[in-house]
Amino acid sequence: MADLELIRQLLERAGRAIESFSVPARPENLYAPVIYALEGGGKRMRPAAVFMGCAVYGDNLDDAVAPAVAVEVFHNFTLLHDDVMDDAPLRRGRPTVWKHYGLNTAILSGDVMLVRCYAELAKCHRDVLPELLDIFNRTATEVCEGQQLDMDFEGRTDVTLEAYLHMITLKTAVLLGASLQMGALVGGATPDEAAHLYQFGKLCGVAFQIQDDILDVYGDSAKVGKQVGGDILSNKKTFLLLKALEVADPDRRAELEYWTGPGDHDPAKKVQAVTHIYDELGIPAMAREKKERVYQGAREHLERAGGRVLTRQQIAAYFDRLLHRDH
Amino acid sequence: MADLELIRQLLERAGRAIESFSVPARPENLYAPVIYALEGGGKRMRPAAVFMGCAVYGDNLDDAVAPAVAVEVFHNFTLLHDDVMDDAPLRRGRPTVWKHYGLNTAILSGDVMLVRCYAELAKCHRDVLPELLDIFNRTATEVCEGQQLDMDFEGRTDVTLEAYLHMITLKTAVLLGASLQMGALVGGATPDEAAHLYQFGKLCGVAFQIQDDILDVYGDSAKVGKQVGGDILSNKKTFLLLKALEVADPDRRAELEYWTGPGDHDPAKKVQAVTHIYDELGIPAMAREKKERVYQGAREHLERAGGRVLTRQQIAAYFDRLLHRDH
Repeated sequence: MADLELIRQLLERAGRAIESFSVPARPENLYAPVIYALEGGGKRMRPAAVFMGCAVYGDNLDDAVAPAVAVEVFHNFTLLHDDVMDDAPLRRGRPTVWKHYGLNTAILSGDVMLVRCYAELAKCHRDVLPELLDIFNRTATEVCEGQQLDMDFEGRTDVTLEAYLHMITLKTAVLLGASLQMGALVGGATPDEAAHLYQFGKLCGVAFQIQDDILDVYGDSAKVGKQVGGDILSNKKTFLLLKALEVADPDRRAELEYWTGPGDHDPAKKVQAVTHIYDELGIPAMAREKKERVYQGAREHLERAGGRVLTRQQIAAYFDRLLHRDH
Repeated sequence: MADLELIRQLLERAGRAIESFSVPARPENLYAPVIYALEGGGKRMRPAAVFMGCAVYGDNLDDAVAPAVAVEVFHNFTLLHDDVMDDAPLRRGRPTVWKHYGLNTAILSGDVMLVRCYAELAKCHRDVLPELLDIFNRTATEVCEGQQLDMDFEGRTDVTLEAYLHMITLKTAVLLGASLQMGALVGGATPDEAAHLYQFGKLCGVAFQIQDDILDVYGDSAKVGKQVGGDILSNKKTFLLLKALEVADPDRRAELEYWTGPGDHDPAKKVQAVTHIYDELGIPAMAREKKERVYQGAREHLERAGGRVLTRQQIAAYFDRLLHRDH
């Protein structure tokens, strides 16, 4: 495994960038929830990806601070509004913003966060600003579309695996791609090089989501930090479930539809029964294989992204590690 | 009264600009509410102001289309989310977006509208883009702050007239100023000239709000198109109420507090009683005087904005007319 000293530095730098982000003290009811949302933590993977993208091509990491803050504030804005839409009471072990501050505050503080993302972007050098703005706008639009598709899927029984992959690409993967791409352009990449980093990040994002789907059922619960089988209990349409519905014979399909349909099932029995069907159908292996195939596609784009070979190697090693954890 | 042929053309052009705005067909649940929100109508005063600002300095009105669309989409975005926060069932005679499509859709469609504002701005020439972006970000932030202050005021009994004027400046006036300023910069104004147009628009915006407060009580109900005294019935803190509380002697103050305090009052009697107090205290004249003073300040900025004198005269005549209507 390559030495990840550079990556460690960039992650640390991303953390500092987010800490440096500040908002006015007043109106307190508008800005306190913004701070609360950002204090929740998280891996800061997206701002780190902006720095990584920049470091492949240049040494001007200071120029990456503004777009790094923009993508992290945007990510937390989406979580804030998504939690309202999903009626979610908890996030990272704390009450969600709407639970803590109320619905109206959650809506408006989210709005001002989105504006602040653009205020960060506006700090970027004017030579590269139009390109960054285009990427950010396209990506933010796609994230909204992905969230809408996700909500639409809840009420549908005809969601295909392909539609699911499209949805998660929009909802979660494009932002990682855009983070790397914006960093690359700030660092001096050509549009073509930056586009390869975008594809790398986007495909890694898809691989991450498939991995999350696997870990929700097959992860080490102590390490995952949440209840195993949560997706099964909430009838979430995951890669595992949709793949199982795709490959199951009519009997097994009926069994799956029984367990994921209406009716009061014992939670433990439900998780056990659905997991058993997944196992019999060989779903975990199929999911892992899909994840690896997607990730190999990502790696090919990284190979073709130009810039500094050693930096790209460290980035590859970092994503390798993240994509092969068991929690 | 000056001939307003140019203004008529610019208003018509603003209408066409908004009609030219389009969104993808899918996801339908995301984008149909955006169209619904924009179809509600409205005077299109803000996009027209962008064209007016441009026309004072240049003939490149095509360049004003993108920022004109941006400010109108932004304005409708704020109405959409405000209606959620205010629990408002109707807007311009139709069900509000959240009433028609549900809460989650209203939140997310609003979000994508805000992103689309920036996508419009991004179409502007790169020479002027950073300046437009800064103005738009500052203004959008202030509009959020104004909405928060407005919500904060609802629960307070110590709101001063000064605080109210600050709130309406942020919530409604700065966007009109920013519209003129962005148009001016697109048209080739110097930063100083554009700043004068900003002040003109902002002060006109304050004057409009004071006028709205007056018309709500003293307007011709048939022409206003809504119930006279609506603000009184909802205990809204308007210029009239706050001025009355400021100048009233203790007895009258107690009377006002009785009628605007808790308790079930007969609506017609309440409107009559509060209006009577306003009349006795001479509040309508004070409000009209304040409106005129603010508008005179606006006009001074318009005088100093440079550019084409004849165009500025038509703009002045247009705002004169709007600020002296009785409905």
